[in-house]
Amino acid sequence: MQLLKEKIRNDGYYMTGEILKVDSFLNHQIDIALLNELGKEFKRRFNDVKIDKILTIEASGIGVAAITSLYFDNVPVLFAKKQNATNLSADTYNAEVFSYTKNKTNTIRVDKKYLKKGENVLIIDDFLAKGNAAIGLCSLAEQAGANVAGIGIVIEKSFQDGRKRLVEKGFKVESLARIKSINDGAIEFL
Amino acid sequence: MQLLKEKIRNDGYYMTGEILKVDSFLNHQIDIALLNELGKEFKRRFNDVKIDKILTIEASGIGVAAITSLYFDNVPVLFAKKQNATNLSADTYNAEVFSYTKNKTNTIRVDKKYLKKGENVLIIDDFLAKGNAAIGLCSLAEQAGANVAGIGIVIEKSFQDGRKRLVEKGFKVESLARIKSINDGAIEFL
Repeated sequence: MQLLKEKIRNDGYYMTGEILKVDSFLNHQIDIALLNELGKEFKRRFNDVKIDKILTIEASGIGVAAITSLYFDNVPVLFAKKQNATNLSADTYNAEVFSYTKNKTNTIRVDKKYLKKGENVLIIDDFLAKGNAAIGLCSLAEQAGANVAGIGIVIEKSFQDGRKRLVEKGFKVESLARIKSINDGAIEFL
Repeated sequence: MQLLKEKIRNDGYYMTGEILKVDSFLNHQIDIALLNELGKEFKRRFNDVKIDKILTIEASGIGVAAITSLYFDNVPVLFAKKQNATNLSADTYNAEVFSYTKNKTNTIRVDKKYLKKGENVLIIDDFLAKGNAAIGLCSLAEQAGANVAGIGIVIEKSFQDGRKRLVEKGFKVESLARIKSINDGAIEFL
């Protein structure tokens, strides 16, 4: 998606190693006009698939998922929680997800009430790197007996193996920007 | 706001004490059609105010803020982070916020790059109870020299003192549903 690639080139920047920062428009400050274009593009890519619900994970996935829902007839958005809280039900589907940016394992959870057998679920997230979060979200859907109708990713680090792991499990993955390499701040897209 | 009150009456439920659960439509599963109506209503209530940016806090505020931005010419949304991460800048405005639902104090942070002196900021959050989160968000804006143009809340627990604390500081607070009392599951609105 050309607009997104330009945004990444112009407004993204690099920290040490392979961490790309896009917090001016995606995961801290959010460019809502851009998110509308991402939502339209997800609809174009999953146009042939029936979607009953969008599943994402707090926090950065929520904005993308909410705006994307506008292009899927306002289907409900469900976001998995990373932390337990006194106001979360005890009756949850759980999955373990290791986060490299936070350097810890989170148990992600959704209330069993909100994922149902037979529902067609579109999984949306901001980044795909090693695929841990996406695999955790797929596991939550599968525990419920829901169908993972597709996985929509904003930015894929294609030099890591997340996509491969998901495709091997049979999932359809659509990433709006696929990064082949990052070298000294020079970014190459696939 | 009548639609929201009906939603709370029909789909909200109570846990022990004064915790109202609205996780079927607001802070776990999200009803996007409802959020559109909330966004329109925030625009109606802050129609006379110039807004440059919406400031909220992860995670439940993000969906409401993102959809609300659609009605304010797609102004950027900035969400304060509750946890430190290796990919967050070290140059942040910070505020301490005690969460009753999680029973712990979080340091909330925003990158200084994304809040500027003179910006007119609309603060959006899902709940207002004792006002700690909203006061923390106001503090972040004030540290930056930004103007808090208003505070928009989805559900206010008016039997707690959050609104009073904010109004005493001179802020304009608009809450779309104001709960006067909760007694044995019977909810009374103001």
